[in-house]
Amino acid sequence: MGEFDLIERFFKRPVRRAALGVGDDCALLQPAPGMQLAVTSDMLVEGRHFLPTVDPRALGHKALAVNLSDLAACGARPLAFTLALALPAADAAWLAPFAEGLLALADAHGCELVGGDTTRGPLNICITAFGEVPRGQALLRSGARPGDEIYVSGTVGDARLALEVFRGTLSVPQEVFAPARARMERPEPRSVLGQALRGVASAAVDVSDGLLGDLGHVLKASGVGARIDAAAARTLMATPPGVLTDAQTLQFALAGGDDYELVFTAPATARGGVKGASVHAGLQVTRIGRVEATPGVRVVEPDGRPVDARFASFDHFG
Amino acid sequence: MGEFDLIERFFKRPVRRAALGVGDDCALLQPAPGMQLAVTSDMLVEGRHFLPTVDPRALGHKALAVNLSDLAACGARPLAFTLALALPAADAAWLAPFAEGLLALADAHGCELVGGDTTRGPLNICITAFGEVPRGQALLRSGARPGDEIYVSGTVGDARLALEVFRGTLSVPQEVFAPARARMERPEPRSVLGQALRGVASAAVDVSDGLLGDLGHVLKASGVGARIDAAAARTLMATPPGVLTDAQTLQFALAGGDDYELVFTAPATARGGVKGASVHAGLQVTRIGRVEATPGVRVVEPDGRPVDARFASFDHFG
Repeated sequence: MGEFDLIERFFKRPVRRAALGVGDDCALLQPAPGMQLAVTSDMLVEGRHFLPTVDPRALGHKALAVNLSDLAACGARPLAFTLALALPAADAAWLAPFAEGLLALADAHGCELVGGDTTRGPLNICITAFGEVPRGQALLRSGARPGDEIYVSGTVGDARLALEVFRGTLSVPQEVFAPARARMERPEPRSVLGQALRGVASAAVDVSDGLLGDLGHVLKASGVGARIDAAAARTLMATPPGVLTDAQTLQFALAGGDDYELVFTAPATARGGVKGASVHAGLQVTRIGRVEATPGVRVVEPDGRPVDARFASFDHFG
Repeated sequence: MGEFDLIERFFKRPVRRAALGVGDDCALLQPAPGMQLAVTSDMLVEGRHFLPTVDPRALGHKALAVNLSDLAACGARPLAFTLALALPAADAAWLAPFAEGLLALADAHGCELVGGDTTRGPLNICITAFGEVPRGQALLRSGARPGDEIYVSGTVGDARLALEVFRGTLSVPQEVFAPARARMERPEPRSVLGQALRGVASAAVDVSDGLLGDLGHVLKASGVGARIDAAAARTLMATPPGVLTDAQTLQFALAGGDDYELVFTAPATARGGVKGASVHAGLQVTRIGRVEATPGVRVVEPDGRPVDARFASFDHFG
């Protein structure tokens, strides 16, 4: 099967919002007046970002999800994406479910596949996604101020638990593993929350490399530090208490990775706005600490005792 | 060296036209009022699109050039691009010249690196490029009409000659090989010509897979066929006469691949406009045939004798 047949068969669909979609030299996008285009690009490599055994449907979902998560962290509404795909072989039995998983998530977020490239090579998925955000309203990493409160959406740490089970370093009951694995393989981008946080959050980032690591990008870009409440952090995993030790729970929650939740800051005066955004998105958010002027992150027990929080974050070159 | 250090060290530069560049979750682009954004994505894989021995500076150049060539074929002015890069190792001796080649071409075309991704994996370069084109003025593949004349910019076929030398199927003198190799490794995207052809050309595509193969996309999208003048086609290579047989010359010119010239159609009444665009771009264009209503491509000698032109075009899944 040739490159063009592949595109036709699995990925070409009628154009909706784009001015011109798959099939010409370029796609054409027409952002609405007053809108900026938010652009993000992520590359997923077999063995590094996913296991060779992964269900192609879940992989299609995740490849787009990690990009939509970046758009969410910017407060942008998903608009369109391009897909560049290197495949060892043109295998319909793999491509059909991959495209299904990918396009189902795209449809759920109103995000249109407008172009891309396919080639033969070691399995590699590169997606570039586009979203719209009103000019000047994007959520940046640089807006956190001392006194702001720090929040995390949903639950974090469970994807890391699943990864450790796959790696053989941890053994948990099947009823704990199954939802954690689903968390790892099918993250839900927090688009609705991200858009609802425009004008509410002072800074935001999505949690892909571990909560503290990604929060660190916000703190660095904003020139501030943070104090994190260890007791609040221990409530962030969906995995029920008793499965992990307290220390493991804290490590997975704060340095797990692959969570694709949003960590964001907001002034204390914006608690109502944060609550409203949370209700609007149907997604719990947890207040886990406070921005401080002193650089660095301090994880602190309720009694004031410091926790050693030099957790390694995921770094795909680490 | 971590992923973030890599980006900082080799790729981060001050933002110019983009609203927000490298370093946040997304880049922000602000197309000018009345402009559409042209988007194209290309993935280059080692062993398939380039040889492991390629000079990284030339590779950086080419990885962006193939995308700028797509923008040129749309008549779009380059604006920005994202770079996703999978590397076997974070090797500064490779990355520095790669970034130099990439950014030198970017600067020459006023095209800004605004974001991307780096990861460890088999060498893979995925670039997504953005250009601006006034609404409704993009050069599409679907606009060719019977009676239109068919043109090619510059010279084609020489990159294929270089490839065949590398493959060992052909031996030519060094003074023939050197410029052909430069053609293969450092294609010049035809941005200026593409923009000058807005309102002049009826359809356009860039020549990446071979002249007839890519022209075929225009013909198919336009629902037409073409008659190609074999004598004109034999003048399209830069390689001097006598090095190749007439049959080889025709095959390399019509089915070479990796040329990154523009093949376009224009009404016979637009000859002046085509000439003007050619002069403006400082680039020769050659009239090679005519669009006909009957589907298919007929390559014809001056005496009317048909040439068998079932040349294989490059297909990266072929």
